[in-house]
Order: sequence, then C-alpha cells, then structure tokens
Amino acid sequence: MHFSISKDTLCQSIQIVGHAISSNSPQASLRGILLTCKDNTLTLTGSDADISIQINLEPNEENNLNIYEEGKILIDNKYLNEISKKIDSDIINLEIIDGSLTKISGEKVVYKINGMFANDYPVIDFSKPENEFSVFAYQLTSIIEQTSFATAPKETRPVLTGVNFNLENNVLHCTATDSYRLAKKLMPLNYENNFNVTIPARSLSELKSTLIVDDEKRITVALNDKKAQFISDNIILQTRLLDGGYPDTNRLIPTEFSYVLHIERDYLIKAIDRQMFIKTDNLTINNLKCSEDEIILSNKSQEIGESNESLNGTFEGSPLDISFSGTYLMDALKALRGKDINIKFTGSMKPFILESVDDDTTIQLVLPVRTYN
Amino acid sequence: MHFSISKDTLCQSIQIVGHAISSNSPQASLRGILLTCKDNTLTLTGSDADISIQINLEPNEENNLNIYEEGKILIDNKYLNEISKKIDSDIINLEIIDGSLTKISGEKVVYKINGMFANDYPVIDFSKPENEFSVFAYQLTSIIEQTSFATAPKETRPVLTGVNFNLENNVLHCTATDSYRLAKKLMPLNYENNFNVTIPARSLSELKSTLIVDDEKRITVALNDKKAQFISDNIILQTRLLDGGYPDTNRLIPTEFSYVLHIERDYLIKAIDRQMFIKTDNLTINNLKCSEDEIILSNKSQEIGESNESLNGTFEGSPLDISFSGTYLMDALKALRGKDINIKFTGSMKPFILESVDDDTTIQLVLPVRTYN
Repeated sequence: MHFSISKDTLCQSIQIVGHAISSNSPQASLRGILLTCKDNTLTLTGSDADISIQINLEPNEENNLNIYEEGKILIDNKYLNEISKKIDSDIINLEIIDGSLTKISGEKVVYKINGMFANDYPVIDFSKPENEFSVFAYQLTSIIEQTSFATAPKETRPVLTGVNFNLENNVLHCTATDSYRLAKKLMPLNYENNFNVTIPARSLSELKSTLIVDDEKRITVALNDKKAQFISDNIILQTRLLDGGYPDTNRLIPTEFSYVLHIERDYLIKAIDRQMFIKTDNLTINNLKCSEDEIILSNKSQEIGESNESLNGTFEGSPLDISFSGTYLMDALKALRGKDINIKFTGSMKPFILESVDDDTTIQLVLPVRTYN
Repeated sequence: MHFSISKDTLCQSIQIVGHAISSNSPQASLRGILLTCKDNTLTLTGSDADISIQINLEPNEENNLNIYEEGKILIDNKYLNEISKKIDSDIINLEIIDGSLTKISGEKVVYKINGMFANDYPVIDFSKPENEFSVFAYQLTSIIEQTSFATAPKETRPVLTGVNFNLENNVLHCTATDSYRLAKKLMPLNYENNFNVTIPARSLSELKSTLIVDDEKRITVALNDKKAQFISDNIILQTRLLDGGYPDTNRLIPTEFSYVLHIERDYLIKAIDRQMFIKTDNLTINNLKCSEDEIILSNKSQEIGESNESLNGTFEGSPLDISFSGTYLMDALKALRGKDINIKFTGSMKPFILESVDDDTTIQLVLPVRTYN
C-alpha cells in the first residue's frame, strides 16, 4: 500500500474514527485504525466492537489524495494521531515497506512505525440496514442532549444504559430512564415502518461528537433489529443495539396533577446550585415546601449544615412538602429548553414531572426521595 | 463574631488563601480557613503546615467590610468557596450564632454551616523575618519558570525538591537540580547580607498563582534560616525552608566545550515534540548525530518504531553522537527565552548545556543517556 494525502484531511479523519477506539482496549487490533486502499478509495476504520466508524475518501482537490498502490495496514491510533498532528509538511506520505513496517514521511521527518497485520482486524459488516430515513442534525442533538443523561450508568439492566427509539403512528418516542428518573422527547417522523430499538448512550455521545457539526445538515439513519447506522457525507457511524425489551414507561408518567409550581428555569438552576455542596452520604437531597404564600427550597446535612432559600414563583394547590435528588432535578432542568417551566406534582411520594411552558415535546420525570427529618 | 463584606472581595480572598490548603489534609482544621475579626480588621488564614497564606482586610469603599463584633471561626474551605461564589447577593453577612454554627446569608438564601472551633487551628507565627528586600514580580516569575521544573519530584533527597537561592556578592544564584539535569538563573540583587536558603518548589508554584498578578509590581521578600515570606499589599505567603545543605553545583557545570550546535529554539522544540510518542519503557530517548555537514535527530523504540529528522542548524566541532531524555531537553528548551540558542557539548557522555544567545543569565544543563543501539 502506498498513498499520499493532505495533513489536514488525514488528521481530521483520524480524529473522527478515533472516537470509536478505546485506547486501553485489551485487544491490540482494536487500538488501531485500519487503513485500506482499494478502487481508488482510502478507507479508515476504527471500532471498539460496539461502535464502529468508517470514513471513505476519494481523491479530490481538497484532500490531495493520491493512491499509488492498493493494500491495507493496521496502525495504533495513538501513533497515527501524534504523527498526523505534528508532522512537518502539508502532505503526508504513507507506504508499507516491509511486512507491517510502515514508512510515514513529511518534509524532513521520516517515521518507520511497526504496524499490525490488517488480517488481525475483526471483520465488520458495514452493509446498510433496510429501514432508512433522514433527520436534521439539530433534531438528533436535541434527542441526545435532552434524554441520554437519564440512562442508567451501570449494567444491572443493560437495556436501561441506552435510549429507546420507538416509532409509532409517525411519532418517534425517545425515552431514557435509570428507574429513578425518566426523560422523554417526542419528534414527528414520517416513515412507513414502525420500529422499537435501544441505542447505547455511549454511541449517541460519540455520534454527537463526530457526525453532528452542522445543525441544518440532514443525517441518514438506517436501522434493523441488530444495528443502527448514522451517515453523513463520507462518514458512517455504526452501533450495535441493546438486547432485551425496553420497559413500557408510559404508565409511569402521571397525567393528572394536584399541584403546579410555575418558575423560571435558570433561576431555579442557580438556587439548586447554591445548595449542591450540602451533601448527606455524598448525595444532595433538596426539599421543597410549597404553599400559595411561600416557596422554600432547603437542604440539610448533619455534617455540613443547612441552607434555606425563599423562591420567587407561583404555586397552585394545597401545601406540599417534597424531597428529591438535587442532582437529578438539576439534570432535568438543564435538559429542558425555554425560560419558564411548570413542575407538576401528584403527591409528596409520587413521581413529578417538569415541562417547559413553550415546548410540550419534552417531559422530564423525577422520583421523590423519602427523608426522615 | 459578626461582619459583612462584598461578595467579590470575600470570594477573591478565599481563592487566594485556598491555595495553601490541601482539601484532603488528614487534619480537619487544615482543611479550613481561619476567619478572625479583631481591631477592625478581618484576617483570613489558610495553611498546609508547609505553606501559609494570610490576607488582612481593613474596611474601605471597595470591600464594603463592616465588622460588628470581634471573634474567630474556622470553616471548611470547600464550603466557604462554594458559598462565596454562588450566593445571591453582592454583600455577604457572616455571623456566629451558636458555638461554631455560623450563619452566612445573602439576599434570600441563608446558610447555617457547622464551623470548627478556632482554637483547634495551629498557631502560625507570621512575624516578619529579619532579612528584607524587594524584587519585581516579573523577576520572581522568571526564576520560578526557568528553574523550578528541574527540582526532584521525590523526597529521596528532600533538599533537591526545592530551588536554592544563594546570594553572593550581590548576585542571586537560583539553582534547581534532580541530579539528571540542572537549571540555573542569575539575578543581580543589592542586599548587604548574603544568604543561602532552599524553598520548596510547591511553595514557589503557589507563590506564582497567588501573589504574582502584575509583572511590574514589587514584592517584598523577607527571610531567615527558618522561613521565607513574600508580601504584596495585604497578602502574606509564608513558607518553611528545606533543611540540609544544598550541594555545590558550580563544579558540575562545564566551562570548556569542544562542540557547539546553534539552532532555533522553537524549531527544535517542534522537532523533539514530533518524536516524543516513540517511547522505550515509557521514556523518550532521543539521539543527535551532528557533523558540520548534517544534524540528525532520531528516536528508536523496539516496540513502536523509529523517527529520523534532518535539522536546520549550524554545528561546530568533530562529529558527535549523543543521546538524552527528550522530556528533559524539551523542559530545558521551554525554560529558555529568545529565538536562537547554543547547545554546548564536551563529549558524548558528558553533561551539556543550553543557553539562549540573547541571555547569559540562564543555564540549562542536561546529562546524556547511555544507549546500546
């Protein structure tokens, strides 16, 4: 294999496929980027077995790609990354010179790097799944930012570590829950086949950092019951799906409420933030005492002390006393959009929901916490 | 104790004294800031026993300080820091309400924080040592930036973890060495009493982050054989000195040279940086092969591969082949100033020195490494 390419193109491509690579993967081949020259195309592939990213480059004026000889080689992502960032030339020349020994040269610097044999790389099937539609990049961003923080961090129930995408009657329901809170985003989507898949939160996070650069761009989504692909220009991000049925969360979301707190979102974020350092057993538990006369946010810890703050807002309903995780409330508030929100309660030990006044497509639900003060 | 003060003043003061505090100190009282109101002055003190920082605030228009009642209290730095940053008011009110329980209030938020008894705080003697002179802030910055990186990180020889300040005949010799490299900075200083003290590198680093804000400001230095103080306006940073005689390093620095490499500093930094990722047993060992015809910088590792680069520069002397730690060379290059440097050698297994062409007050010395290629 032998090719030359613009430093900028190679550097950017390595950054992107590098997002799929775990630098401490126990499998040496997965710490590498697979470079393949075939049919006048340079393909870069990175993978951690769950997520795989592939970029296909054809020669053009911008990338200055010239393929002199077909072939393939696997090189540690760390080394390619360092070299492509720091080489002393606008054009990088890469050539296999002996087995897997690869010569990479700039203007005066010449590297000879021990590659790995391309045949050691796992075979990854990048064929496009049958269900294909497209969405705007900003729509994916909203879904990811407004739901994925609520997925479960640990794998006690693996399916909860992902965001569920359920298309029913041309409405895409995106849901994440760790069973203590839930985030849900609805999005209209005209597509003939209903589907119900759960995508790992980590894949969505890498999707956001790699494919989503221009909000107004359309991203192709293709999926079946095994995998999902996200495609933008010459980049494919492919992720496995999480196995197992996603729980039916609709019945968890209350629809009738006895109390409503109307408050400014940023103002409440700051008030919670002022009390976050007061922790009990490393958790921040806040308390709200609401009546039509007064709204008091407080937090008390045996060790540290306490904080009390009278909030500006409007409360409707009989007096309510409710405690909850400040961290979860903060996450939910940050995931909403707009200036004003409603927090709707059904009782002091019942889940409550947060909604933006201007946006009924997003629901944040938080479970209260029992306290013994 | 009871006082009120501007949020900005309290916040800045806490940031500064906080530099002396280790948040994970095993001694709870040292995780705190001591607040003392006496003689119409609010004093904040932070310490980790090695470094202590004290700020004295007297009421003025800017700080809006009002002292209503004398007294003292010790409060965890973490809590004071959070509160002073996030409180909802331009004026903070602080009052001991019961034993060590302290009420801190803003506009609507009221904290009641469990303080610690001020009597638990170690007695720190802030009396000023007898040898007193002043230097410009930029002079201290140069000394710290150009020497302290070369101190030893570990305490096998404690005195090497500090920078030695030795005044002789109105020249201050500042020296740091970990016995594999040495950094030396000379500075004229008119002061009648010679001294020879070694200041911990960590203290110098905190000095740089706290007292040095305006290059042109003069900083008062006061020292004896036990401690050193650095004073700027109402801030005192006091550090213990390292015990033990500092080695005589003058005889280590060669004065006659058989070879000189003249090269651009930034250019060499970039060339070394391009090869830094090629490590053997986690160390970067570079090799220079110099003759009057060619200068080759290279680096070779069994595992990763190799790099070769022909450098632009001028070499005087018979051919030389020398290996060294790339990290040490990089540190030395970054600590020099100016565009062009001379690297002066006496032999392939002898220490070599790096000097800026424009500045003869700074010497960087590096020991070569034996290789078996």
